[in-house]
Amino acid sequence: MLKVAIITIGDEILIGQIVNTNSSWIAQKCVEIGATIIEHCVVGDNEKHILEVLKRTFDVSDVILITGGLGPTRDDLTKPVLTKFFGDELIFSDEVLQWIKEYYFKRGINEVTERNKNLAFIPKSCTPLKNSVGTAPGLLFEKEDKAIFAMPGVPKEMQHLMKEYVIPYIKNKIERQKFPTHIFRVLQTCGIAESVLADKLAGIEEILNGVNLAFLPSYKGVRLRIDASGEDVFQVESSIQKVVDYIRSKIGNYIFGEGEISLAQVVGDLLSERNETVAVAESCTGGLLGGEFTNIPGSSRYFLGGVIAYSNEIKERILGVEKEVIQKFGAVSQETAKQMAENVRKLFNSTYGISITGIAGPEGGTKEKPVGTVWISLSTADKVIAKKFQFGDDRHINRERSVGAALTLLYSYLKNIEI
Amino acid sequence: MLKVAIITIGDEILIGQIVNTNSSWIAQKCVEIGATIIEHCVVGDNEKHILEVLKRTFDVSDVILITGGLGPTRDDLTKPVLTKFFGDELIFSDEVLQWIKEYYFKRGINEVTERNKNLAFIPKSCTPLKNSVGTAPGLLFEKEDKAIFAMPGVPKEMQHLMKEYVIPYIKNKIERQKFPTHIFRVLQTCGIAESVLADKLAGIEEILNGVNLAFLPSYKGVRLRIDASGEDVFQVESSIQKVVDYIRSKIGNYIFGEGEISLAQVVGDLLSERNETVAVAESCTGGLLGGEFTNIPGSSRYFLGGVIAYSNEIKERILGVEKEVIQKFGAVSQETAKQMAENVRKLFNSTYGISITGIAGPEGGTKEKPVGTVWISLSTADKVIAKKFQFGDDRHINRERSVGAALTLLYSYLKNIEI
Repeated sequence: MLKVAIITIGDEILIGQIVNTNSSWIAQKCVEIGATIIEHCVVGDNEKHILEVLKRTFDVSDVILITGGLGPTRDDLTKPVLTKFFGDELIFSDEVLQWIKEYYFKRGINEVTERNKNLAFIPKSCTPLKNSVGTAPGLLFEKEDKAIFAMPGVPKEMQHLMKEYVIPYIKNKIERQKFPTHIFRVLQTCGIAESVLADKLAGIEEILNGVNLAFLPSYKGVRLRIDASGEDVFQVESSIQKVVDYIRSKIGNYIFGEGEISLAQVVGDLLSERNETVAVAESCTGGLLGGEFTNIPGSSRYFLGGVIAYSNEIKERILGVEKEVIQKFGAVSQETAKQMAENVRKLFNSTYGISITGIAGPEGGTKEKPVGTVWISLSTADKVIAKKFQFGDDRHINRERSVGAALTLLYSYLKNIEI
Repeated sequence: MLKVAIITIGDEILIGQIVNTNSSWIAQKCVEIGATIIEHCVVGDNEKHILEVLKRTFDVSDVILITGGLGPTRDDLTKPVLTKFFGDELIFSDEVLQWIKEYYFKRGINEVTERNKNLAFIPKSCTPLKNSVGTAPGLLFEKEDKAIFAMPGVPKEMQHLMKEYVIPYIKNKIERQKFPTHIFRVLQTCGIAESVLADKLAGIEEILNGVNLAFLPSYKGVRLRIDASGEDVFQVESSIQKVVDYIRSKIGNYIFGEGEISLAQVVGDLLSERNETVAVAESCTGGLLGGEFTNIPGSSRYFLGGVIAYSNEIKERILGVEKEVIQKFGAVSQETAKQMAENVRKLFNSTYGISITGIAGPEGGTKEKPVGTVWISLSTADKVIAKKFQFGDDRHINRERSVGAALTLLYSYLKNIEI
């Protein structure tokens, strides 16, 4: 195993003012290529604590990935502490200064402040790593066949350095030194229940051969985690690939992607390929479905817009749902959902209309329609489909699940999956 | 200082499949009452690693807060490892079984499965803590004047146990044992730039008296962090209060809340009090502003809905923006923004209309209107205001900032702040 420790440095994370999204992002990237995470640790801007955690993790890991504390202010201790840890000294790097100048120059700034020039002081024994999306360079220390990477805490900069330097470095180390590896891959499915998935994959045990398969149900569909470990990274990759191929041959249509990709992105790509468009009519989600579609750069190619119809009056007046329908069946009903989807499609002149109407909670539930009841409908040129969902009693989760279910409905239609 | 270590147990967090939001939540609650966080640590479902981190943190902290690994499956190691750590034994607790039965009974389930009955086995020396929102009880161990709390990893359950037991326990310990404390408070402002804020607070140094004041600019406005430490918790609280009072007297109107509260919640409460309503017209944010309003339970009292007008045609046809206006000034312009806000207000018959139109990126920017240019407008019965913003080149950040700026515009209007 190539053992990785992830260290986050910074008071703002320690005292909870910022959620530590960096650690999970880094961990995910590392396990995808076969590294083993042994620990995440967050410490404050405190020399003693940083030194302690460095000493401790240096002994038990092969690679240490540090984020934070690399900026130009007095609080930023990562560089001085690493210098101390390695018994090193700071030197001025003209190469790094050049990078910093380049960075500012591209943004129309020709003068580098004294404070930012300080970023060009680096420990003598480290290799600086060019940061094209920020000013503070990454730092790589190699000692006793171990590596320590220090990266800025800004997610965009950290991700850039991870992709450019850290991931290739770890991948190479695993392959070159024949570290026993443990590789994880995740296939994302939607539109199929865990039990049906299990039925369709019956018999897979016979081809697993030491590869592990786990079903991870989530709000957004069931994820399949396939992992295996072994001495030889190529062999491990190939046994995992065999299992992935088998799964794809059995349930390929339900797999919308691998790793991090979002369903909105996949649905958007499908619409784009087909030159089709979509509009949304949202009640309980209040705009979240539109927000999810438009998260994707370039979504204006297929997403036309929508109506947020939070009140019944708006459902009637702007979306043209019949008053009698709402009176007879209620705002959260198959009939209302269908008219919302149908009418938003016509109003926006889009290929598809999707609607969501439900009771997000905590109030508004009844015996017949408890909190978590949601109707979702899809309208196309020649049919209208509607599905009822019964989510739980948590408002935020209900809204998230509704968005996922709406995207799944459209995805299933586009992939000819029976709904 | 009362030193707190936060330990998260679970493979899913360790390998990055779940973001660790629990640690930041816990940290925030602890620093608010004067505890000092020394470390967060994440370890996997691995007995050896859990034992190691327990031993290490037990030596250096006064309170250890553990989440995760308390469920009924074989992976859940927190209980057995704590039993081992304290040289304890598991006993069956009838009291805990009663709690579990109660929990299920309230949900209409009269039978407790064998697996769930196992949750009633607890280490003999611990005090079980009733979990009213889940089945696994919290556990409290007290030894050598130190306390270890173990809580389930489900955020809702953890938060419940924190509020019911952990926070009062720590507060009491700090007060009783006269621990030197370090207390943080955060005031959230909006609608005022950092430099103006600093000007308005000029002279505050004279009343600080050892209290620290930090300006933390973020996408959503400038937060003011006020912190102080000392031997006596009451005295520390009172010196902080003096500074808070002074700040409020100078810039009270710009402070929309303290701690975690969201601007959408505050704006919603103001609208509610005034019996007023709002509708939104969103272009580049694609529904996110509506999503933010409707995150708040009970938002249907004041949020009527909106139009997501992602394409120009929709801006014209549904929102009634004049074709000539878009042709002459562009979709991202003061004129278009104003017509969007004005017309959505009329269309929805709401007190206020808010519009957002901008270039989120990465594409669509020009020399005159680079990526990040956003116009936001507010329409009321007797006027229309529009403001131009120049955000950066990151799509996601631009969208977030646009939502924040739109809420700020409405907040400022409602509070009579000059815009």
